[in-house]
Formats: sequence, structure tokens, C-alpha cells
Amino acid sequence: MIAAKGYAAQTAESLLAPWQFERRDVGAYDVQIEILYCGVCHTDIHLTRNEWFSGLFPMVPGHEIVGRISTIGSDVKRFRIGDLGGVGVMVDSCRHCEDCKNGQEQFCTVSPVQTYNNLGHDGQPVYGGYSDTIVVNEDFVHRISEKLDLAGVAPLLCAGITTYSPLKRWNVGKGHKLAVVGLGGLGHMGVKFGKALGAEEAARKLGADHFIISGDEAQMKAAFKAFDFVLDTVSGNSDVNPYLAILKSNGVYVNVGMPAKPWEVSSFSLATGNKVITGSGAGGLPETQQMLDFCAEHGIVSDVELIDIKDIHNAFDRMLKGDVRYRFVIDMKTLNFNQ
Amino acid sequence: MIAAKGYAAQTAESLLAPWQFERRDVGAYDVQIEILYCGVCHTDIHLTRNEWFSGLFPMVPGHEIVGRISTIGSDVKRFRIGDLGGVGVMVDSCRHCEDCKNGQEQFCTVSPVQTYNNLGHDGQPVYGGYSDTIVVNEDFVHRISEKLDLAGVAPLLCAGITTYSPLKRWNVGKGHKLAVVGLGGLGHMGVKFGKALGAEEAARKLGADHFIISGDEAQMKAAFKAFDFVLDTVSGNSDVNPYLAILKSNGVYVNVGMPAKPWEVSSFSLATGNKVITGSGAGGLPETQQMLDFCAEHGIVSDVELIDIKDIHNAFDRMLKGDVRYRFVIDMKTLNFNQ
Repeated sequence: MIAAKGYAAQTAESLLAPWQFERRDVGAYDVQIEILYCGVCHTDIHLTRNEWFSGLFPMVPGHEIVGRISTIGSDVKRFRIGDLGGVGVMVDSCRHCEDCKNGQEQFCTVSPVQTYNNLGHDGQPVYGGYSDTIVVNEDFVHRISEKLDLAGVAPLLCAGITTYSPLKRWNVGKGHKLAVVGLGGLGHMGVKFGKALGAEEAARKLGADHFIISGDEAQMKAAFKAFDFVLDTVSGNSDVNPYLAILKSNGVYVNVGMPAKPWEVSSFSLATGNKVITGSGAGGLPETQQMLDFCAEHGIVSDVELIDIKDIHNAFDRMLKGDVRYRFVIDMKTLNFNQ
Repeated sequence: MIAAKGYAAQTAESLLAPWQFERRDVGAYDVQIEILYCGVCHTDIHLTRNEWFSGLFPMVPGHEIVGRISTIGSDVKRFRIGDLGGVGVMVDSCRHCEDCKNGQEQFCTVSPVQTYNNLGHDGQPVYGGYSDTIVVNEDFVHRISEKLDLAGVAPLLCAGITTYSPLKRWNVGKGHKLAVVGLGGLGHMGVKFGKALGAEEAARKLGADHFIISGDEAQMKAAFKAFDFVLDTVSGNSDVNPYLAILKSNGVYVNVGMPAKPWEVSSFSLATGNKVITGSGAGGLPETQQMLDFCAEHGIVSDVELIDIKDIHNAFDRMLKGDVRYRFVIDMKTLNFNQ
């Protein structure tokens, strides 16, 4: 076993605190990554606090991981020691179900393994990226360009792919009007991708073309049937109907904010204009690599605020207030406790 | 003005009864149609009884109209006297908004005119197809093939286009598994179109490949992630979640049943598998003509039960019990009262 350090929640009621634990040995198809940066996702708050469902503790959160490969297994083909590697929301899947075959391993029906708060195929708990090192099957490690700012790359592994994937699925691009709702870690990536793909956006700052205050009834009325696509990244939005109203006919509302409360949706508001409501969950392995390559080509990274891991509680508090421009990223050099 | 006979509801509380009224004169761009058959749509029940919203009375329902053109205006180009003509859910629109330009006149934002329970552009009420004759702008009249059984063609103008349009939008065809929920006027057309387009369906009878009882939990469990597409034609379905569960990843649930009660939809059930909920409202002029031509080519008509207009109340009652295989159509020869 490999000795590892990290920050863990021992229970859903306890704060994250330093923890020493063990990772599995590097198997024939595994690589070991020395973690340099890990993004802080709202999901980390939800899961360590049992806000969605009851979790597996102790829990080391973190699924926006970037680092350098320090060890490779005997049969590893895609990586060499010293390469950069990135890990997102999953670290294993069955590889043979319809979803895995279609490159949507995140929806694997048989044996998906999320990066943390899950059991691996060996039956042992897996631990996330708020840690100095991680061992992952090479298939679930992404190539990372040396050209980009690495701290800004970390959030691409979740916030990036989660917004890139629906924009690609729905062919958002030139001639489209895109509204991005919410400008946090996900929303600001939605604006960057929308612009890079050629769409005209409405959102706050960041070079978006327009800005609408969704709480302002007059502004929303003026936006009636104005958009082809609404990308909603807000975790608290409980009413989709105002966003359906600003969609043109055949328009698409996609939610990646994952509000816990169900929406009330009327069949009439969908039939009138053939409107679409959909969600989008992260992205599969091929699409995540495609997104990372797209970012390298277009010079896209997340805007980040680099933090010391000791400040993680303060970061959680500020995220809950929306006080971050636009993603906290842990500088893993700051993880240097001894127990 | 042109003298017309029909069956009308004088109020939302009264039964349909014989009524003599006037149609507008045939304008330069209008045709007059002697109505041969009119299909009986569930919407006719909803609207004459104010079940969705408060209507315009007296109300002559009916928007599945087939007949022969008896008079043409001086500038009519597309029709000659003696041609067959069909009229669906709308009889006018603004012609210049984005939806009209895109051939989705049913969503016209400026001045849509539905076939009944609406005011025409002249400010006068329009009356539907439970009648001997109708005057319509030629642009809103469809060409009907002489090859098909005319009584079976009438329901194509609403039930047909309402199921054809979403199947085309979502490219349902070979290699797809389609579940049709409900086998009434709409559902049986969904099965016919699904088969003609090459999909494998699950539905009752009519040559569908499989049949699942949606109330049977074990059968629904066995259908987990089995379908690419669910076409829900039931007006009473208040829970979409069982249908989301039988969709594969990226699968599409489309509702054309228009239940009055909103659904509760969880963002998680959409994000897991990137699933889509959408509705579909009838179809535009070009697509409706395309559908009618498709039907002529493939010999597709609705299975109908021809009725005397005097039996309309009994027909409504039987529809509410689901006791019709699969669409009532009024034989307009039976409209021969004198007041």
C-alpha cells in the first residue's frame, strides 16, 4: 500500500481535517500521480455534508485533479513518468455496457466508480483529490497540455467538461444566442466555451455580449423567445418556467446546477414551441480529452483563486455566498502536515 | 356572408347541438371547402368544456377537416374547384415572425389563428369543422391525395402531424427503440409512423414489436434503459419519472398528451444519462404537407370509427373511457337538420 495524506471529513457533521490513509499499490495498468492542484467543486460540499444522500466516511473529496505521474504500472501504454495527468469525476467503469462502449462511462450501468465517495472494483473505498497522491487506472487519466496554467486546468476536469458537453451535444455555435444562468465555476466556463464556439451570449462580465438580471421581470419579458439555448448552472434554481419563456421555438434549457428540489413543469410550456428541458452529467472519457485539447488550442482555462488547503472551510463558506471569481483551487504544496 | 350549419356548444355547460351560423365570404386568397369528414380530437372535449381555459362561445369544434373545394377566390393559385383540401389546427398566422418564416406557423407569436375558439384577422370568431362548410385562406389548406380513404385521412390533420413531427425532429428511425405510451387517436398513429420510419416499437397491438404494461413494476424494471425514445400520448399522465427510467442515456421523452397537471421533475433524473423531456405541438404548414405526402406514399391512414354527428355526445363519453379504436370521425353527410 502507498502512504497518502489528505483532508477528509470523518463524518457528515465534521469539518475537513488532515488525515493519513493508504492508496492501493500501483497495478499493471495504473499510474500514480503526485497531485499539484485540485479544484473545489460545489459537489464537494454537498457530498461531505450528506446533502444529496448518505455518503461513505471518512471522505476525501476532490474530483478536479491535475498532477505529474510519478510511477507507472508494467503495462501502462499512454503515459510516462514525468507526464502531466488529469483526473475528473470518475476513476473506473465496466468498459462493456452500452454507455461505456459509447464513450459515456460516467453513466456506466454495471460498475461505475466515482472519484470519491464510492467503492473501487477491489471493494475498497476510493479517495479524492484533496490529497498529495492518487493511483488511477491509466484509462481514466487525461493528457494535459504543458502550455496551459495548471491551476486553471484543474477545474476543467469537472466544471469544464460539465459545461462543454451540453454545448457540444446541442451544437451551440455561430448564429446561436446562448444565455448562461449563474456565473460561478460552471457558468464562467459556459461563457468561455460559448464564445469559443461562436455563440452570442448573455451573462455577466467575462466578455459576454449582454447581461440580463433574471430577477427583473421587465428585462425577462423583453427577452421573450430571444434565446436558442439556456445553460443553467445555479444549484438553487427551483423554477424553470421563466427560462422556458425566453427560449425561441425548438430552444433547449439544460440544467447542470442540480438543484435538490424538483421543478414543476407544465406540458403546455413545452408543447408551445417544442421546447426542451434536459440535464447533463459531466462527460465521458473521449469527450473530456476532446475538451482538454480544445482548451489547449484556444488557450482556455478557468479563472481561479488559489488557496492553502488549511483555508478550505473558509472557501466552502465563501462558495455558499457566491463569493469566488470563479473557482477555488487548492495548491497542494500547502498540504505539508505531519501526524 | 355564407350560411353554414354545424354543431356548437352555446356555453361550456351545454351539450353540442345543431346551430346555424355564418362564415365570411370567400376572399381573393380564400377557398371554400364542403366538409366531408371531421375527426373528433380530445381537445374538442377540453375546449368546449373550458377544461384548459375559458373559451369563446358559441363554439363549433373540430380541427381534423377533409373536404372538397367548392369555391375559390380570384387570386387562389394552389387549388381548383373539385380538389380535395385538408385543414388542421390553424387557419391563419402573421407570416413574418421568426416562427412563421421557419415553417412553424403553429407557434406564431404575432397573430396566430387556431381553427376554432379564436378570432380571425378580421376580428370575427372562427368556427371549426363540425360543420358543412368552411372558408380558409389557401395557404392554410393542405393538398390531400385521392388515393387514401378520406375518413381515415381526417385525423392525420391533428393526431397525425402531432405524432409525426416529434418523430421527425428527433430522427427516430432504423436502429431505434421507440415506446409509445397510450393507444388512442395519437398513440396508434405514433406506432404506424414509428414502423414506417423503421423503428422498433413497444406498444399494444397494431403490429408493434413488444407490449409493456406501464403499471406493472416488474415489466417496467425489465425495461430499464431500454428505449431511445418515449412518445407519451396520454392526457392523464402525471408522472414522467417511470418513463425517464426506461430511456437509454441521451434518450428523449416527448409528451403530446398535454396533461393539465404539472409534472415534478428532478434535475438528477435528467443529468444522469443526459435525458431529455420535451413536448411537441402539432406541426407547421410545410411539415404537415410532408406528413400527408408521406402517408400517401406509405398508405397510412388513421383507423377510424365513422359516426353520425347526432352521436357526438356518446362519442365524447366513449373517448373519456378510452373506448374507441382509434379515432371517431364524423361523416358530415349526417349533418342534415333544418332549423
